Amino acid sequence: MLYIADTPFDLTAGRAHTPGTPEGSAGTEVDRRTAIVAAALELFAVQGYRNTTMAELGGRAGIRGPSVYRHFSSKQQLLSEIMFATMNGLIEGFARAIASTSDVAAQLREAVEVHVRYHARNRFEAFIGTREIGNLDEPARSEVIARRDAYEMSFRELITLGAEEGRFQVASVRLASYAILDMGMGVAVWFREDGPLTEDEVVRHYGAMALRVVGSA
Amino acid sequence: MLYIADTPFDLTAGRAHTPGTPEGSAGTEVDRRTAIVAAALELFAVQGYRNTTMAELGGRAGIRGPSVYRHFSSKQQLLSEIMFATMNGLIEGFARAIASTSDVAAQLREAVEVHVRYHARNRFEAFIGTREIGNLDEPARSEVIARRDAYEMSFRELITLGAEEGRFQVASVRLASYAILDMGMGVAVWFREDGPLTEDEVVRHYGAMALRVVGSA
Repeated sequence: MLYIADTPFDLTAGRAHTPGTPEGSAGTEVDRRTAIVAAALELFAVQGYRNTTMAELGGRAGIRGPSVYRHFSSKQQLLSEIMFATMNGLIEGFARAIASTSDVAAQLREAVEVHVRYHARNRFEAFIGTREIGNLDEPARSEVIARRDAYEMSFRELITLGAEEGRFQVASVRLASYAILDMGMGVAVWFREDGPLTEDEVVRHYGAMALRVVGSA
Repeated sequence: MLYIADTPFDLTAGRAHTPGTPEGSAGTEVDRRTAIVAAALELFAVQGYRNTTMAELGGRAGIRGPSVYRHFSSKQQLLSEIMFATMNGLIEGFARAIASTSDVAAQLREAVEVHVRYHARNRFEAFIGTREIGNLDEPARSEVIARRDAYEMSFRELITLGAEEGRFQVASVRLASYAILDMGMGVAVWFREDGPLTEDEVVRHYGAMALRVVGSA
């Protein structure tokens, strides 16, 4: 049983096993690198960064002995790569959402949908991103935190714009931004592909709820 | 620097040090027990359950040697006590909120306010409750999860009632419940007593945002 929980609700989480490319198979160098990252996502999420060794990661990815170091110099490099990929994915998704329309309410809806879809699809990444930040060495840690702050701030600026245009009615832009982002991150905790609601349904409902939070007219 | 994070935003969290009662002081048995729980909350949150020893907990609480075992037979007992106290606090808070009024919208607002206030005040508890559930032995683990499910279900039933009375307009009761609870739990991550908004302000705004989420008329 795998426990992935950052809310007190629906604590049991599983995800299909992503097998690594067995050594000696037709796997390319790129395949092996991908398999190591997949192994790191799973093992860091399930047993924690500190409790995982490079040897385990190699084994999980089907790579014997020290050749795992040909792809990643350290566990720390893997953690850093996962953390940056997560934040970059979110930031790029926000940029795409904003560029897709010029209507501020449609922009917010789209940005929330992208945020929620990311958290539904990347549950290990979301979990590691929050639980293992303290194990990321400097300067990477400060840089990841700066990107998280920038991501949050971009939602805050969008809500501010909507309020200035008279489209949103918010008592506190900051709290509305936190509430919207936090409810979206919660999706990473409870969402299951085989659950009662599809990813598209969840995404659409969260987009609509976010517009309600900002009192969208 | 203490990292308490279960959202990607505002990762650095601190809380005033709660010193234990020094041994040899006028502290009573009850004081010592309280000091051990306070030490466990801090050390489990900061360094994790597995990385904390009973000796450290005793030391932090100002109790020398094995006499810490006079109060708690094991780390596991402490973890269990913290987890149950958290869930019981939330469940009792919900019951009080519901009893305080007969209007369904006022009930939901009050229940959300209690939920948010609890998470603003009990940040270590919230963090431990989510991160350490996998370290809780059975049958306690299943029982805590059952209480969490019951707590979530009580919000869902309240929202269903409001929808049946025509007071709430929700596309998905389940998602509205998740969104409201998740946004409230997020408060435990970013709230600071010396931040720009007081606890009462945050509580009031979240109560209002929750009513928006359910389309309260």
